[in-house]
Amino acid sequence: MTKLSDGDQALRARASKVIPGGMYGHENVARLPAGYPQYFARAEGCRLWDVDGREFIDYLCGYGPNLLGYRHPEVEQAARAQADLGDCMTGPAPCMVELGERLVDTIEHADWVLFCKNGTDATTICLTVARAHTGKRTILRARGTYHGAAPWCTPVREGVLQEDRAHIHSFDYNDVASLEAAVDKAGDDLAAVLLTPHRHEVFQDQALPDPVFVRRARELCDARGALLILDEVRTGLRIAPGGSWERFGVRPDLSAWGKTLGNGYPVSAVAGTEVLRDAAKRIYTTGSFWFAAVPMAAAIATLSVAKREHVSTHVEVIGQQLRDGLAEQALAHGFGLRQTGPVQMPLFLFDDDRELVRGNFFAAEAMRRGVLLHPWHNMFLSLAHTDADIRRTLQATDAAFTALRKANL
Amino acid sequence: MTKLSDGDQALRARASKVIPGGMYGHENVARLPAGYPQYFARAEGCRLWDVDGREFIDYLCGYGPNLLGYRHPEVEQAARAQADLGDCMTGPAPCMVELGERLVDTIEHADWVLFCKNGTDATTICLTVARAHTGKRTILRARGTYHGAAPWCTPVREGVLQEDRAHIHSFDYNDVASLEAAVDKAGDDLAAVLLTPHRHEVFQDQALPDPVFVRRARELCDARGALLILDEVRTGLRIAPGGSWERFGVRPDLSAWGKTLGNGYPVSAVAGTEVLRDAAKRIYTTGSFWFAAVPMAAAIATLSVAKREHVSTHVEVIGQQLRDGLAEQALAHGFGLRQTGPVQMPLFLFDDDRELVRGNFFAAEAMRRGVLLHPWHNMFLSLAHTDADIRRTLQATDAAFTALRKANL
Repeated sequence: MTKLSDGDQALRARASKVIPGGMYGHENVARLPAGYPQYFARAEGCRLWDVDGREFIDYLCGYGPNLLGYRHPEVEQAARAQADLGDCMTGPAPCMVELGERLVDTIEHADWVLFCKNGTDATTICLTVARAHTGKRTILRARGTYHGAAPWCTPVREGVLQEDRAHIHSFDYNDVASLEAAVDKAGDDLAAVLLTPHRHEVFQDQALPDPVFVRRARELCDARGALLILDEVRTGLRIAPGGSWERFGVRPDLSAWGKTLGNGYPVSAVAGTEVLRDAAKRIYTTGSFWFAAVPMAAAIATLSVAKREHVSTHVEVIGQQLRDGLAEQALAHGFGLRQTGPVQMPLFLFDDDRELVRGNFFAAEAMRRGVLLHPWHNMFLSLAHTDADIRRTLQATDAAFTALRKANL
Repeated sequence: MTKLSDGDQALRARASKVIPGGMYGHENVARLPAGYPQYFARAEGCRLWDVDGREFIDYLCGYGPNLLGYRHPEVEQAARAQADLGDCMTGPAPCMVELGERLVDTIEHADWVLFCKNGTDATTICLTVARAHTGKRTILRARGTYHGAAPWCTPVREGVLQEDRAHIHSFDYNDVASLEAAVDKAGDDLAAVLLTPHRHEVFQDQALPDPVFVRRARELCDARGALLILDEVRTGLRIAPGGSWERFGVRPDLSAWGKTLGNGYPVSAVAGTEVLRDAAKRIYTTGSFWFAAVPMAAAIATLSVAKREHVSTHVEVIGQQLRDGLAEQALAHGFGLRQTGPVQMPLFLFDDDRELVRGNFFAAEAMRRGVLLHPWHNMFLSLAHTDADIRRTLQATDAAFTALRKANL
């Protein structure tokens, strides 16, 4: 029975009986400081309310999907209008074609798209298309990078076979020599190099891409007849709608998109160039819900709003405000705080804080003051975060720095 | 730009530019008779309207998900109520816990559940849990059975490596000797036997499970310390809500669910027994949209309506009416028609029709008369199919048989 009055602790107790470990996956708060909300009652804009009635300015954005603000009226309206017609039918609705056209227009390298549901679906399809097109097996990827949670890429090896990762080899992100060595080792069997637009792994500083590395990756793929795959699942639409590496003049052959596409409605996509169209046609992949119309209608509205409102510019401006404010506070309070990666997807880590003692304490103090930060995962900004939200956030973080100083951790 | 006036042919022409092959996956009508609708404008109950304004009684039900009728008011209401609060947030909503409890109550063998998005996610997780629990690698599956579209199971080998299917071996469904031989060959390395509740492959007669085979599969797993995995993605809630093999007194260790769970809203699930809880906790799997609240709220409503309305009984009764009517007509018109599998998931194939000349012609004739049948994929019945729909369907099929006789194919 639903007990609407159940708070976070009661829900956790109930969940521990019917869900392994009480929760799983990236939304499991087990590794976050005590008191972090696990269950949410409501969302609007950049605000979340947990089941205990606490209000937060949310810097996780659903771990990415919330690009325009939770329950953005235009997206909701588009989704409802389509829901009133039909969603998961025996075939797609016309909006699938329109969304395909819109994405081909938006993503610079794209001549075609293919829709799926998970980010992992999209990255997996990229590998399959690359292997179908080249007839080769080897995929090179950056060491430790997250590309999803299928057996070939999940960060935990439990239940995963060696063979699930056969012909997948690693190099170090931003390290030209390491990439060159991996390419040499792959020899004639190189199908693709798979990269995220920047390095955004948990528990470590993010790293912006070195333009020299980016261009060299493209050159090496071209020289070897291999494909360059860009995993934009986490970055898509926040960094640059046309593709995160457009500013380097580098285009991938294949790209994977997810999270933000439907502003939270479930849809992901693979985009590819003309030469790969035939391979994409020859592979077989599908899903029960992949042709559902409502997320596609939501995605069309998301693209429209994102374009009109220049969302990637907004999140960059607001993200810079947050970064500058935190940097100033850290300095004033005498803490070494490393803020890394694009300001649209902030991550901060305290110096000399291997065990995250300071990071956890600081995030917990901010959380108690109504600001949901993450101590070791990159965060996300949205169109709904305003100057006023940043100011309010910085008040909370200033108090959190004071508390941290006092705690002398 | 959306051209609302675009009909099916115009949409196909536009799609051919931005989607590889114009369409992909199981909702691609390329292998269906000419004139079959690819794009749908609207759905309600068991009715679909295509973009050319043609109305159909739909026997595909979105290839399964539509269990209660498209846009079932109680499901829609539950989904909207949750959507007004929040969907894809930074953590789950309370309805995740309630849905977990409801499924553990509903699925007889289940002590826990884990939610995901695709049916393929669910079957893949079953394999991972089985391997994590047993420390063994070999999975035995019935030859030619569809378990999803990931590299380990997609029916098309393009872009798939040999290693993607390492340690996955086949036996023949319902063939005890074949299963025993495969189990013997697996020796000490058997992690699990993976089965669908009945054989429901395309282009061939379905096969109900032989109770001797079902019980032997359970015995063999027990004897070898292996797990029995039941893939209920296509059968779930239509055959029997508690599990399709309950009537044989056989319970799986793990089961995969999808399609119908949210009556079209995207949610799938893995259910498992107590002994597997720890393995399920140790593996890592997740997805950007897996914790979204709206599909879970929809699933709770779906389970409630399905239970109250005895949906599996309804689809059995109505399915029997359709089967009896078609059998009578085939006999009267002098055609050998094989109707196989559970009546809730009907499949029919004409005798001596290897090339599906009769099957395609018959389905096209029914389609022209407002009845959407499938000439080689199992169909699905819903709570929304009424006696009157079956009568109207049988009028159309009677005319289709007459046309088929006249065509002398």
